[in-house]
Amino acid sequence: MAALDAKASHVNSISNQIHQLRPKTGSSGHPVPQLNCLSWRLAVETNNIKDWKLVPLQCEGYVGHYMLGKQYREDCYNVVAAAIQYAKTLKIAKDSKDVWIFDIDETTLSNLPYYARSDVAFGAIKFNATKFDEWTREGKAPAVPGALYLYKALLSMGIKPVFITGTKEEFRQIRIANLKKVGYSSWIKLVLKGVNDTGSSVMYKSAKRAELVKDGYRIVGNIGDQWSDLLGDYVGQRTFKLPDPMYYIA
Amino acid sequence: MAALDAKASHVNSISNQIHQLRPKTGSSGHPVPQLNCLSWRLAVETNNIKDWKLVPLQCEGYVGHYMLGKQYREDCYNVVAAAIQYAKTLKIAKDSKDVWIFDIDETTLSNLPYYARSDVAFGAIKFNATKFDEWTREGKAPAVPGALYLYKALLSMGIKPVFITGTKEEFRQIRIANLKKVGYSSWIKLVLKGVNDTGSSVMYKSAKRAELVKDGYRIVGNIGDQWSDLLGDYVGQRTFKLPDPMYYIA
Repeated sequence: MAALDAKASHVNSISNQIHQLRPKTGSSGHPVPQLNCLSWRLAVETNNIKDWKLVPLQCEGYVGHYMLGKQYREDCYNVVAAAIQYAKTLKIAKDSKDVWIFDIDETTLSNLPYYARSDVAFGAIKFNATKFDEWTREGKAPAVPGALYLYKALLSMGIKPVFITGTKEEFRQIRIANLKKVGYSSWIKLVLKGVNDTGSSVMYKSAKRAELVKDGYRIVGNIGDQWSDLLGDYVGQRTFKLPDPMYYIA
Repeated sequence: MAALDAKASHVNSISNQIHQLRPKTGSSGHPVPQLNCLSWRLAVETNNIKDWKLVPLQCEGYVGHYMLGKQYREDCYNVVAAAIQYAKTLKIAKDSKDVWIFDIDETTLSNLPYYARSDVAFGAIKFNATKFDEWTREGKAPAVPGALYLYKALLSMGIKPVFITGTKEEFRQIRIANLKKVGYSSWIKLVLKGVNDTGSSVMYKSAKRAELVKDGYRIVGNIGDQWSDLLGDYVGQRTFKLPDPMYYIA
């Protein structure tokens, strides 16, 4: 009873606060100006808005509905269809040197079950590395809609997958288990971020792609949910941008 | 009466055709597969779909409603707001060498009154150069939503506008008159496509930007509705992509 009373009193004290936990007003009490969440998402997807830290509070509901609804899936399928259409135009050599770069998070494996949690709120609440690592360690991420289909289509054409991810090297076995569990069965390379891989994602991924090119691989395609997957050096013959309105990585 | 009869008979013969003028079925009579027009537009705006020739028939209505409705305007305002926010972070020199590249069509001046015509159908009907030139010659294009606001904001910060357009040199006086009429009053350079400017838009615009850089200008920003405005050489410190689901220029 004492514990229940303490909890009830705690709930009560929150509901009595002048400022809500995540207020819809600015710091001075003025209402946060109206934001067109469709415009915000388009600006994010076209890289017009960079270095954003959080999904705007007003857009948490919009982003959540988008990510859980059919539009996100259809947007993904559409990108995958464009990628396959392009891949079909390629002349693939027999030397297994034609590779396709896959980012992992929100490209190959989906963290949507994590991002849909109420304490993550589709990216409207500050990123918590500890909690996110715990989720990664569970190894339960499903495939991104259409991604497995693209992966299998490319393999059947003789294009070899290379995964380059910002996930730390210590998670290698966990990620391999997760990839295999959902159906990604083989790859030429799985590149994770080592302790010496400092700097931005653009720099890290550019350096890893440069190594591939030095080793004689031809990057015929590259797919990612972040522009930092697709900009920089040796980005590949064609790049494909999957949607991700939940977070930004420079 | 004879003329009216002929007209009526003409209308009748069209409505009796087995194939409609712009059929919703493919060449073999099968229904055209369902297309998610929102996904198509996102793929276009993120440059996942390239070298497309026409707005898909099934998306003519969607694109029309988008372009004429509030979402297109809000999307434009949002890009402009992001551009101004970025421009405010710049330290502008006193030497008038900091420039901002503006494309013209669908970036500075809007051809929406032309594209909304029933014989243009927001880009779902094949481009007609003769008719489009006639429209350009009228010199009646309004400003793109927010573009004049961006132009004036940049000028007030000491950033000089440079227009680089795919419009042919012969239209120079018409375009100048059109620009001035809607409120674009001054610029460092207005670059139109000369008879010797062959090759793709990316090549042409890259070459013109290279000349600017050679002349000591610093391209601090670049805005366009086509990815070909924003890719290639000397694209500038930051680029901004305005929406345009009506046509694609390589």
